[in-house]
Amino acid sequence: MYPRKFEDLTEAFRHLPGVGAKTAERYAFAAMSWDKQTQENFIQAVSGMKDMKLCKTCGNIADDDLCVYCKASDRNPKIICVVQNAKDIQAIENTGSFKGLYHVLNGGINTQKGILPEDLNIESLMERINEDTEEVILATDPTVEGETTALYLTRLLDRKTKVSRLAYGISVGSHLDYTDTLTLTKAFEGRTQK
Amino acid sequence: MYPRKFEDLTEAFRHLPGVGAKTAERYAFAAMSWDKQTQENFIQAVSGMKDMKLCKTCGNIADDDLCVYCKASDRNPKIICVVQNAKDIQAIENTGSFKGLYHVLNGGINTQKGILPEDLNIESLMERINEDTEEVILATDPTVEGETTALYLTRLLDRKTKVSRLAYGISVGSHLDYTDTLTLTKAFEGRTQK
Repeated sequence: MYPRKFEDLTEAFRHLPGVGAKTAERYAFAAMSWDKQTQENFIQAVSGMKDMKLCKTCGNIADDDLCVYCKASDRNPKIICVVQNAKDIQAIENTGSFKGLYHVLNGGINTQKGILPEDLNIESLMERINEDTEEVILATDPTVEGETTALYLTRLLDRKTKVSRLAYGISVGSHLDYTDTLTLTKAFEGRTQK
Repeated sequence: MYPRKFEDLTEAFRHLPGVGAKTAERYAFAAMSWDKQTQENFIQAVSGMKDMKLCKTCGNIADDDLCVYCKASDRNPKIICVVQNAKDIQAIENTGSFKGLYHVLNGGINTQKGILPEDLNIESLMERINEDTEEVILATDPTVEGETTALYLTRLLDRKTKVSRLAYGISVGSHLDYTDTLTLTKAFEGRTQK
């Protein structure tokens, strides 16, 4: 029998993805053993989650009405890169090669899981696209879900603006004999002239 | 670039044991997607960690000066069961076969990791033991750490009170051919007459 507050803490940690009873208990014991300052910082950081919002334009996480990209003046609003999740943005930003804006769908179409186009952040994407839009880059995951979503969006956007999809191909630093057949086929199809 | 508060949240989750950058980010995104009520409950539960203390007598987690066991009137204070961690208590309580009090060492002796007897909650154990104490049961883990600690405590307590150690032996429901040699040897040594 643990003290009530300890049980509450364990129960709270169980809400985190992939955390079961044992792990939650381990987290709670660890949190108990932190010094006062670490505990205070943790509580403060966690309390901040209430104040976070989704960007009204693109659906990315934001601490204001607009996210850092939609607010920035040095980004090109004529090119919109569509991603499934907000965390995909970080991966793209790390490349440093994209200077347009983003649009976060918040998932991908998956009929088996009952996730349909109307469950995604697609309506607001359509609203953003106008005659100034030069290109929509579909950067959904290279999975069945991501492909289905990309196909759906391509049909939806086709007549309104130029639509492109990230290139498939061999990974830099990988080996040909370890590359799966489908990826290699796509790499052949998408070969570029030197 | 994530909003400041989101970075703080991710950073906070990284303090949990075994949680790296990727997992922390996953937790933060999950927390973001919770409904307001779940977020509120989580924040409240986490805020409670500051109010938890260690029992002044036994070192167990408590929400008061004394833990639930030290406070209870139906436990036998003459028998003290020594465990390495507070969570071991729950395992022993689940058996329903022990009605004495506990003492939490908060670790085990491990010279390689620099954990020495003076780092453990041993001094307060010595203070608790008096002429009324009938038995000290050493329920440290059956590991090198736990064994070392048990050996140390046996020598320390030997002349003051009766000291016992949990029995080694075969696990209920296991198979003899899967039992390791050392455990089987100990099971032979500790055999009881029928």
